[in-house]
Parts: sequence; C-alpha cells; structure tokens
Amino acid sequence: MALIVQKFGGTSVGSVERIRNVARRVAKWKAAGHDLVVVPSAMAGETNRLIGLAQSLQPQPDARELDVVASTGEQVTIGLLTMALLEIGVKARSYTGWQVRVLTDSAFTKSRIIEIQDQKIRSDLKAGYVAVVAGFQGMDENGNITTLGRGGSDTSAVALAAALKADECHIYTDVDGVYTTDPRLVPEARRLRTITFEEMLEMAGAGSKVLQIRSVEFAGKYKVPTRVISSLTDPDIPVAEEGQSGTLITFEEDPHMAMEKAVISGVAFNRDEAKITVHDVPDRPGIAYAILGPIADASIDVDVIVQNVGHDGMTDMTFTVHRNDYKKAVKILNDQVKPHIKCRAVSGDERIAKVSIVGMGMRSHAGIAAQMFRTLAEEGINIQMISTSEIKITVVIEEKYTELAVRVLHKAFELDQA
Amino acid sequence: MALIVQKFGGTSVGSVERIRNVARRVAKWKAAGHDLVVVPSAMAGETNRLIGLAQSLQPQPDARELDVVASTGEQVTIGLLTMALLEIGVKARSYTGWQVRVLTDSAFTKSRIIEIQDQKIRSDLKAGYVAVVAGFQGMDENGNITTLGRGGSDTSAVALAAALKADECHIYTDVDGVYTTDPRLVPEARRLRTITFEEMLEMAGAGSKVLQIRSVEFAGKYKVPTRVISSLTDPDIPVAEEGQSGTLITFEEDPHMAMEKAVISGVAFNRDEAKITVHDVPDRPGIAYAILGPIADASIDVDVIVQNVGHDGMTDMTFTVHRNDYKKAVKILNDQVKPHIKCRAVSGDERIAKVSIVGMGMRSHAGIAAQMFRTLAEEGINIQMISTSEIKITVVIEEKYTELAVRVLHKAFELDQA
Repeated sequence: MALIVQKFGGTSVGSVERIRNVARRVAKWKAAGHDLVVVPSAMAGETNRLIGLAQSLQPQPDARELDVVASTGEQVTIGLLTMALLEIGVKARSYTGWQVRVLTDSAFTKSRIIEIQDQKIRSDLKAGYVAVVAGFQGMDENGNITTLGRGGSDTSAVALAAALKADECHIYTDVDGVYTTDPRLVPEARRLRTITFEEMLEMAGAGSKVLQIRSVEFAGKYKVPTRVISSLTDPDIPVAEEGQSGTLITFEEDPHMAMEKAVISGVAFNRDEAKITVHDVPDRPGIAYAILGPIADASIDVDVIVQNVGHDGMTDMTFTVHRNDYKKAVKILNDQVKPHIKCRAVSGDERIAKVSIVGMGMRSHAGIAAQMFRTLAEEGINIQMISTSEIKITVVIEEKYTELAVRVLHKAFELDQA
Repeated sequence: MALIVQKFGGTSVGSVERIRNVARRVAKWKAAGHDLVVVPSAMAGETNRLIGLAQSLQPQPDARELDVVASTGEQVTIGLLTMALLEIGVKARSYTGWQVRVLTDSAFTKSRIIEIQDQKIRSDLKAGYVAVVAGFQGMDENGNITTLGRGGSDTSAVALAAALKADECHIYTDVDGVYTTDPRLVPEARRLRTITFEEMLEMAGAGSKVLQIRSVEFAGKYKVPTRVISSLTDPDIPVAEEGQSGTLITFEEDPHMAMEKAVISGVAFNRDEAKITVHDVPDRPGIAYAILGPIADASIDVDVIVQNVGHDGMTDMTFTVHRNDYKKAVKILNDQVKPHIKCRAVSGDERIAKVSIVGMGMRSHAGIAAQMFRTLAEEGINIQMISTSEIKITVVIEEKYTELAVRVLHKAFELDQA
C-alpha cells in the first residue's frame, strides 16, 4: 500500500464526462489499497474565461483581485470531482489551498510555496478518505488568496507529494510520457521509460512542454518520484499496468537507473526566441550588467547568453529573448544602453531556433559536442551560437533548419533504437 | 458621513457593463464622504450553472461539496467588482466569507450566521478602502465553506450592517421599492415610502418576493434600517435623491413613522399552495400532532392551519402546503395517518389562492376583518379558510378569484390614495 498524489490537467477534467472518468481512475487505485491525494486543475478554458472577464474590467487586473477570481476555477473542480467520487461510493473530501493550508509568499499571480500543513489531509487519509486538493492556489500569511501562475497545479501536486512524503506523484496529461523528441517532428521518437530530473529540467528549459519547469525543480529538490502518465487511456486498465506506464522521473542516486541510461536522452527545440547582438563593446568588468541590467529592469527574461573572448579591447555579446519581447529589448538597447557604453551597433534576428541535446551520459562521454557539431555541419546547417551546461548542449541555428536539425541529431545519437 | 452597506443582486452584476455601473454607483457614494461595504451576489445565472454541473455529477449533490462549488459565484464577483472600482480610482479590497470572517453553523446549503468578525473590514474602512464582501457564504468552526441558501446575499448584507452598526443597509434590486400590492395586477398600486419590519415580514411570508424573509428577520432583530432601492436608475443620479428613494424598512419605535402609517400597508397573495382537509377527526389532545407530525417528518412545510371547534366529539383540520408537496402529503395522510386516527376522509384542493392584508394600523382599528370579509362577499367570493395574526388577516379562496380579490381589497382600503 502506497501513498500516491495524482494530478489531472484541465483537459482531463474538461467536461462532466471526463470528471467521471477521473473519478473511476482514482477509485481503481483506491480499491487497490492505496492512499490517494488528487489535485485537479480548473476545467479546460475556465481560467482563460475568468482572466478574460477580469481584463474586460481592468486591462491590467489588480494582482490580488485576479487571484481571488482565478482561484475559483480549481475550487469548482475539487467540489465536482469529490461529488463524482462520492457518487460511485468512494469516501472523499475536498480542500481549497487555504483549507489545507498551502502557505505561500505574497507574490500574487506567481506565488511560491513556503510550507504545506499536512495534518488535515493526513487524518483524512487515515480515516479512509480520498483528499481532493485544489491545485494552483494557496494563501499568504495575511490570509490573502494567492495563485502559483500558469501550470501551477503541477507544482502543487509535487509539493504536496513532498510534504506528505508520498511514494509517487502521478502527473496525468494528454501525452503518454516524455519522448526523445517531439513525435510530430520525428515519427521515430521513442517514449523514455525513465529520465533523471536534471535531464527533465534541461528538457523543460529547452522547450519541451510536458511538465512545468518549477514542478520539476520541486521534484528534484525534494526527491519526489514523479511519473508522467496519459489520461487518455481506458480508466479501467489495471493498476499494475498503469503504474508502470508513462515516464518516471528518477534521481541519479539510483545506481540501477544510472546504469541503464543512454548517453543522450533527448533532443529538444524552441522556436519562440529571437537573438540580439551588441557589437564591439569595451571588454571590461561590469559590461554584462550594463547591457543586461536595463533588460532585466523591463522584466524581459534572457535565455542563452554568449560572450566571445575579446579582441583589441572589444568584445561582442549575444543573447536570446522571447520573440514577444524582441522589439522592446532592441529599443532599450538602442535608447538606453548604446549611448552609455558606446558600442558600435545593435543587431538582431527573429528567425532563429534553439536546438538542444540533453543527457546525463554526456558527462562521462567525451566527444558528444563534436559529434553534434559534425552532424549539423554534414547537413550544411550553420551554428550561430553555442551554449553548454553539464548535461546539455544548445545551439542556435536559422529557424528554417529546425526540423532537419532535430531529425538528424535524433538519428545520430541513436534515439530511435530501443 | 455615514457607514452604509450596499447589496447588489445577480441581475445588477449580470454583465461586465453592469458591474461597471455598480462601481460608478458605489464611487458616487464614496465621493459623497460615506464609508461603504458592498455585497454583490453571483452574476445572474452563475449559481444555477454551478448547481447544474453538480447535479449532473451527483443527482443529490453532497451538501458540503455543493457549497464549495456554489460559493465560487460570489467569489468571482467580488474580485471583478473590486477591479472595476480600482479602475475608476476608488481604493477597494475584496473579502470572501472566510476572510471576513463570517462564522456560521455547519448546516451546509442553508447555514445560519453565528458571528461576524469585523476587525479587518473596520481597519480597511478607516484606511479609506471600500470593502467588497462576498454575500451568500461563510465558514463553520471547522474551516468548511458554507452557504446561506437562496437569497442569502440579502441576509449577508443585513448581518454585516448589524455587525458594523451601519447607519443604513441598501438593498439594490430590479424593483424600485415595496408596493401596496403587485403592480402587474393592480396598476394603481403605490410604492410605500416606509414599511415597518413586522409588516415586511408578513408581506414576505404572504408571497411578496422583494426581500428574502430571513434578511427581514435579521433587520428586525438587530434594528438595521434597510432601504430597498432600484438598481435600474442612472448610476449618476445625486446621492441625496437616491438615498431617499425606494422603500425604507423602519421600526415602530420611531413615533413619527408610526403616526404616518395607514391602517393597511399592503395586499399580498400567493398561488403556490394547495389545501388539504382531514374530516371528522376525534376532538382530543394530541390530534394535531398525530396529523402534522408525519407531514413534518417528510420535510413538508405547512403554512396556514385551521381547526374548527368540534361537534359531537369530532372536528375538521385544514392546512395548506406548497403545491409541489401536495400529492406527497395526501399520500402520507391516507397511508399513515388515516388508519391510525380513524378520521372519516382526506380531501384536498390544488386550485386555491391565499390573499392577505397586512398593516400595523389594524392593531388599533376595529372592524378591519369585517371590512375585508364584506368586500369579498360583495364580489361573490367565497372564503374557504381564515387565519389571523396581530397585523395580518389571511383568507384562502378559489384561485380564479385572486386578481379580483386583490383589486377590490386594494381599493377598499384606499391603498391607491397617496
């Protein structure tokens, strides 16, 4: 008998019929003797509806009040799912974030969890109840309602699993696991049976949308075994089978898991970014801050940053930002930064893609980067930027080569082989 | 400068545009120097939508979970209304029932308010904020979400006004006050400038739908001056004018108000009931309980009850129930009561109407009942049952005479005269 936290996304609870299916799925696990804590998202479309109402009254909605409104989506779902469970004879009780309670900081619309008080849920589980807990939401120390931001239900589920020391956290979603790359691009893409949380983190950062990056950080920090499972299968498939399906996010400490690993686990890509170069800036201390400080002040996130070694006391700095922020960033550099640091020019390119290979194995295998660059060169794909971490190599290339680059890298690292 | 609680019904906040109008109305009162606590209902249709979702998952929804779901309607509105106020430059902050907090008993879906903690709202008002408080909802001592049942926002508003010792409670609704009778039936019906809370209570009990009866009880118990005002007027009409409009519910202690009163304040009617007679029951102690006990056990509310003086050791008992309960009540009487008390027969009639005249003045005026009965007799309307209280006389008549009876009584008691 295990304690399992199960999270269901907005599509999985998107209609009365689907909520019934979720209830059947949960009932099946309960019947198998497990303790269940279930975390549903808001019904698909509901959060957008609520935010739309808010924006039509206040174009930039007050953050505290937006959380009051947006948090109702999950509150509705916990009540409905609990009813569906009761209707099929499963003892269940719902909890909002403040009822649990999930204590957060006061950064409305993007709060971070500080502490989860688990007494009520523990005593419910002991009494044989399924606890149905609203994802995405919490309460600050002043009793205000807070939300964790988009995708926050994943984080709620993993954080609950950590607080309750759950045996496993199941993230039910509309894909059946984590793939070596996007199967829509590469039909040979394979589902990974396991992936380390570090790899998952790099995959998420590199554009893979399976799990929200904060929830992966949480899973890693608290070592929560987290499994991504499809919610589109027959709700009545046996627990033994469902419990081995999908992709399990593991921790390297497990030697069996580490041994099994291939060199590279996956190829990720992202076409949402744009590249900006500041040319011929004086190569002196403080220059990176002088350039990126005003960008950060405008709340623009910077991703890949590359600075070449200098020449003649000058250097170039290149970085990527989200395409939506591109024009704003270029304007800031021209208006505020250029006159100040006396660089030669600011240039940019919106038609780029970021392609990464990710794998724990590359730490103990030399020549992975060289193999990646050779593979791309053989296809005539020019590399514009390179950035590396311990378990990821990212290149920026011309956008039109994205599919080709992903396909050849997937093949070169034999990700299509079982 | 006064402290005013203003309640807005579901129609008044039924769209983004209407919420903006409510904000303008509130802003106007704030600009006139008053402290405001605003209690909005859920947007029109929202509570029914939520209950519909619940019933499609569980035909008899679990009461605790239904409150979790249903209470979100008001939570959305407080956030939206607060945004609308902020957008036009009015400092405002929203509160759910549990944030206030409104402590209730644990009778989910029909809870009663035990206590309102007013510290947070008081300190907000002191700091110049408009407090926007969710109606209809509260929290029990175990931290469960509760709701007050249909029309509960009226009760929330009056209870808040009592707790805060507000100078006046404004109930904004889609009628412009309390009328001498239903203007759709009698075009000459006049709006009452004032009505005592006892009269209002009898009017509500007799079928007038302007205010929920529990909110009137609250207003009476805590002597909250409550004014029914139209929310359909131009939101920018001057405060001085709006503050004198509608109908003020008063307390007889005010001698000026008492002097002004006419003998009769209004004619109320109700066509939702059915009449049941139990014939020739033994005229002995305990017989009323033997008949009405099983009815009450089936959760059927009984309204008018009449028992005639006995003859030959036998008596008849007649009472009215809601038409929806009629068949069930007759079946209980035939199956459970008749064999037990050995009455002669059970008969009934679904085509009846209840017509009442209500007025504080009738306590000091003889002959009011006689005048009522004569007026009806002159029109050939037979009276089937009579029931009286200190300030109300109710008759049950054949349903088809309802309009005629209301019209002739309205004229006979000169309710059409200013």
